[in-house]
Amino acid sequence: MNFIEKLESRQQKNNTLLCVGLDPDMARLPQLCRAAAEPFFQFNRALIDATADLVCAYKPQIAHYAALGAEAELEATIRYINRTCPDIPVILDAKRGDIGSTAAKYAVEAFERYQADAVTVNPYLGGDSLTPFLDYADKGVIILCRTSNPGGADLQGLDVGGEALYLKLARLAANSWNKNHNILLVVGATWPRELARVREVVGAIPLLVPGIGAQGGDVKAVLQAGLDSRGLGLVINSSRGIIYADSGSGFAAAARLAALELRDLINSFR
Amino acid sequence: MNFIEKLESRQQKNNTLLCVGLDPDMARLPQLCRAAAEPFFQFNRALIDATADLVCAYKPQIAHYAALGAEAELEATIRYINRTCPDIPVILDAKRGDIGSTAAKYAVEAFERYQADAVTVNPYLGGDSLTPFLDYADKGVIILCRTSNPGGADLQGLDVGGEALYLKLARLAANSWNKNHNILLVVGATWPRELARVREVVGAIPLLVPGIGAQGGDVKAVLQAGLDSRGLGLVINSSRGIIYADSGSGFAAAARLAALELRDLINSFR
Repeated sequence: MNFIEKLESRQQKNNTLLCVGLDPDMARLPQLCRAAAEPFFQFNRALIDATADLVCAYKPQIAHYAALGAEAELEATIRYINRTCPDIPVILDAKRGDIGSTAAKYAVEAFERYQADAVTVNPYLGGDSLTPFLDYADKGVIILCRTSNPGGADLQGLDVGGEALYLKLARLAANSWNKNHNILLVVGATWPRELARVREVVGAIPLLVPGIGAQGGDVKAVLQAGLDSRGLGLVINSSRGIIYADSGSGFAAAARLAALELRDLINSFR
Repeated sequence: MNFIEKLESRQQKNNTLLCVGLDPDMARLPQLCRAAAEPFFQFNRALIDATADLVCAYKPQIAHYAALGAEAELEATIRYINRTCPDIPVILDAKRGDIGSTAAKYAVEAFERYQADAVTVNPYLGGDSLTPFLDYADKGVIILCRTSNPGGADLQGLDVGGEALYLKLARLAANSWNKNHNILLVVGATWPRELARVREVVGAIPLLVPGIGAQGGDVKAVLQAGLDSRGLGLVINSSRGIIYADSGSGFAAAARLAALELRDLINSFR
């Protein structure tokens, strides 16, 4: 079973398009986690235990771990997911990108060292820089297309031959690079009109959509713009709105409630 | 002293534009390093001891360490450079890029955890994604512009309003993003004509040029295209051609010889 099959199987079985971002920040961690020997892993484990039945994927963002040298806690987190809920795919959010021989090392990092099911990558270096990732045919390769931040348009919105760069990129990904059918694209929830255009161009390729919640994306607009003809095709990520729903000892229960509400809100527009 | 001052001071004092990439690969390491407790650090330390007087910078590429969980050896390598040859700036080649709040974590990773003097970054997410790096005014932020790989043109070569995307990016970097005067750009040695165009657009902004040696770039063409009016403005990187000049116990001496030859070849065209 490849990544997209694993993802969609989980989405259908648990009736959820929700992905929870595991982005621990020491300054925002509940006191009881901060005092633990492995603060990030304790925090993540409690969040996973509280939300596993509600999600179609988890997405740890690696910079949060790397800033503090907490790679071992990221490894422990992914091992914990793979052991306790092996049906839930793990997306390593790393936005890697380099020339071929180095990209191959990044692919080893994501898929072999961390045992992630998918990784986010940056397409600026072109198709051959993505090949070492794409060659892992059972893994997902999630390419940045139209990012959620205000400055995303600086390059992605430039006109190239009558269409924006992000659409040209979507076309390249769908028509030239997707030989192993393991590509997904990132389109921010903050740009529903652009999301609709990407959906038109890429057919059934699934889209990872960050930017709901703290970044202001509108759930209804995202669903209307991005669902594919099967009512699937979206992985809607929320990080801060769920994992920091409460900063006290009840953080896990509050995260569950926030995840439940967002899952149901998403489903109400499907 | 900010990064560019530190770099140029070193270039002038030691009369060298050569940067050596510290990209250890277990499969290519000399046997005597492979058997050590910290194989990558042993390898790097011998290379640093052998080449320090010949280089203007060292550039460890982080994927080589991350693939194997050898972050501690990367930390040890940079600590060793900062202790034994503090005049030599360290460029962490990481090609990071993410939205602002996450980019801030990557900046902490590069500048605080690893204590690098500069980091390579990917501009696909736009200007606001670079701000957290650029805000470290004494550090260097080296933005991918025209990369050395064959697929680099897939996006970077697209026509945007009469010029290629990489030139548009160079203009944005030089004219809009460089408030702290700490930007450099990456232009591959394999594209000397593009290098000349970037030089025209960016004035005295220094350019990091990978792709000499194993990737086939021509030293003379690079120097003619890329030097600024002071005979500076280039950081010419070689990794494999130097660090794997010999695979036996004489690897460090062979690396010194290869570095010496390349430094002198570069200087012969200045």
